[in-house]
Amino acid sequence: MADLYLALLHYPVYNKRGGIVTTSITGFDLHDIARSAATFGVKKYYVVNPLPAQREFAGRIFDFWMEETSLEFNWTRVEAFKLVAIKADLPEVIAEITAADGQRPRVIATSAKPRGTVSYETLRQELKASDGSYLILLGTGWGLAEEVFAGVDAVLPPINGPAEGYNHLSVRSATAIILDRLLGK
Amino acid sequence: MADLYLALLHYPVYNKRGGIVTTSITGFDLHDIARSAATFGVKKYYVVNPLPAQREFAGRIFDFWMEETSLEFNWTRVEAFKLVAIKADLPEVIAEITAADGQRPRVIATSAKPRGTVSYETLRQELKASDGSYLILLGTGWGLAEEVFAGVDAVLPPINGPAEGYNHLSVRSATAIILDRLLGK
Repeated sequence: MADLYLALLHYPVYNKRGGIVTTSITGFDLHDIARSAATFGVKKYYVVNPLPAQREFAGRIFDFWMEETSLEFNWTRVEAFKLVAIKADLPEVIAEITAADGQRPRVIATSAKPRGTVSYETLRQELKASDGSYLILLGTGWGLAEEVFAGVDAVLPPINGPAEGYNHLSVRSATAIILDRLLGK
Repeated sequence: MADLYLALLHYPVYNKRGGIVTTSITGFDLHDIARSAATFGVKKYYVVNPLPAQREFAGRIFDFWMEETSLEFNWTRVEAFKLVAIKADLPEVIAEITAADGQRPRVIATSAKPRGTVSYETLRQELKASDGSYLILLGTGWGLAEEVFAGVDAVLPPINGPAEGYNHLSVRSATAIILDRLLGK
């Protein structure tokens, strides 16, 4: 089984007008995606934001929930939060995984647009058969900026329901579905 | 294809100590689950809370986002919110579906405990072959109270990853996965 990592990028991502922006870290992105990561055996969940004030904000949320009284109140959150690491940019994430696992991870982007290059089923089989490391990139805002796709090894297709007319899932919901498709029982 | 409905119950659900409580409506439960509902073609998403002040709170969130300036800012949220209806209790939900569709829906509970009576694959096939109505019940807090299970037609199994040691998904993430398993492409 491969080692799977997640990275939630707050930069470079699009805003609704197609401009490239840095989005804010939200508590729900931390909580929900950390819980999904813990449920599906993700090795580490990287929250990536270039703004020091944003990284400090996330740090304060962690400090609060990792205190002893919080642990007593809600151990499931603490277990999930142990998987989270906060980084300034994607190269830093890739460098940490490379150092930990002794090899550069294969980097897989996600997109709500139909630009997939590998199916969920193919990647699922690949993960099962591999001893390598894989890093899934998730975008906030209106999605990962074009420049991110230039540096990735593959792209997963969008998640569609029966209608196909509307696929505006929250990044939290999309991540849960992606993990279930790749690793769910 | 069957008509699928969702109901998010804020009562009767457990708190962490096993007491039966009414939980609060949260903005993220409205937003994320409405978007998942829209993506997967759910016919209506019922937010169920017996407290009038809570239902008014949810109503104010809707009014704000359904205004013209919000529509211009974010039409995908408005499309999703059109699916939401706020009700006081489960009988009211079942009565509305029965009146709309001319038949009582089959009611399917969800649980993070291993008490499933129908597999995702079986229910998926059933939905595809049926012209009937189905209502999926989702619990907030620490899950649906025991009394809810007495009145349902079936229960879906918990969502597990490869490890099975931890399955504490947020209700938003669990709902996204359940819809994908039942209706995803």
